[in-house]
Amino acid sequence: MMAVRTIEVRERVLAKNEELAQDVRQRLRDAGVRAFNLVSSPGSGKTTLLERTLATLGDEIDIAVVTGDVQTQNDADRLARHTDRLVQAVITNGACHLDARQVATALEAIDLSAIQLLFIENVGNLVCPAEFSLGEDFKAMILSVAEGDDKPLKYPLMFHESRVLVINKIDLLPFCECNPDLIEERARKINPNLTIFRVSCRTGEGLDRWTGWLKRQVKPEK
Amino acid sequence: MMAVRTIEVRERVLAKNEELAQDVRQRLRDAGVRAFNLVSSPGSGKTTLLERTLATLGDEIDIAVVTGDVQTQNDADRLARHTDRLVQAVITNGACHLDARQVATALEAIDLSAIQLLFIENVGNLVCPAEFSLGEDFKAMILSVAEGDDKPLKYPLMFHESRVLVINKIDLLPFCECNPDLIEERARKINPNLTIFRVSCRTGEGLDRWTGWLKRQVKPEK
Repeated sequence: MMAVRTIEVRERVLAKNEELAQDVRQRLRDAGVRAFNLVSSPGSGKTTLLERTLATLGDEIDIAVVTGDVQTQNDADRLARHTDRLVQAVITNGACHLDARQVATALEAIDLSAIQLLFIENVGNLVCPAEFSLGEDFKAMILSVAEGDDKPLKYPLMFHESRVLVINKIDLLPFCECNPDLIEERARKINPNLTIFRVSCRTGEGLDRWTGWLKRQVKPEK
Repeated sequence: MMAVRTIEVRERVLAKNEELAQDVRQRLRDAGVRAFNLVSSPGSGKTTLLERTLATLGDEIDIAVVTGDVQTQNDADRLARHTDRLVQAVITNGACHLDARQVATALEAIDLSAIQLLFIENVGNLVCPAEFSLGEDFKAMILSVAEGDDKPLKYPLMFHESRVLVINKIDLLPFCECNPDLIEERARKINPNLTIFRVSCRTGEGLDRWTGWLKRQVKPEK
């Protein structure tokens, strides 16, 4: 009984989220804003990738960020130190993913007509964020090589739902039992359309390809 | 409305889980089995720590393992290769944590009178597993130094609910911006009773302290 009711409520929650996500998507499209939902395990490097990206592209592209965190706004504070761009913090109060309602509320504080690109940094979690659309153009997944090359096998839904995979911390490859070719092979078997980058946010290796690709994603300056 | 109903259902789910967890706890106590619930982010090294632990203690202590995974039984297969001990796989079908009902069912296949120590390897997730008791004696949390030293600040509930913290992959410290003293300081501020280990499952460093401590946790041989 309990299980059935839980599933019913879950389906209603997902349906309601999808409805709100469509509203967010429409607002972003109307304003000509591209939006990426950054998803990963805790500690894969979402915030550091954003710091690097803002440092490189912040002068060329008008970027805003919404960060989601369970209890703190540490990520938003970190990013605010590196940029004068708009950073909105969402504290989920224990929930393990952002939802479209939280993003819709966060966007109230952002002048969408003044930005070209929106990053939504989700809660660090490889499971539930895969199921919740936030109105983004697509999900970009970050995976640290320290997590191992079995992750596509173990968390296939996230690889399936993402359009971009950023393999991060490649400077650690000599010290980890992780084969990045195997990550790519396994990830593409789940999702042949993945665009894959290999980067080290620590050394900067590979970031030029990522930022170059991002530049081609945004609409011309407003 | 939706939010209120979701919270109500969530509370009922947690209450029902607690009830089932008490049953599991009683069964384990009656059988004299110590049980640890291993929790961490994806890729922190739960399975590798178990492989190492089984290799070292498997001849001295009667150990069984229940592994939880979202879609696969890869972890159970990995462990089964390294041990002739009982390994039971639970596939959560998308759920981001194990619950007490799943553990109760998995235990049906294990002769509790023949084991002294049970490891329950949870789904890789630093959020939801903190809220669900599985009838364990306590949670043991694994954190890889590659995840960074800010994790106690960002996921305080998991540190609060755990009795043991295993800081893993210390061989990567020279290559990561991570201060393990800061991890310990921040973790103890949340939970002064934490027993903390620093290990490298790759090099073996620190594992003797962990396995020595484990041996002192189990009841004398049956």
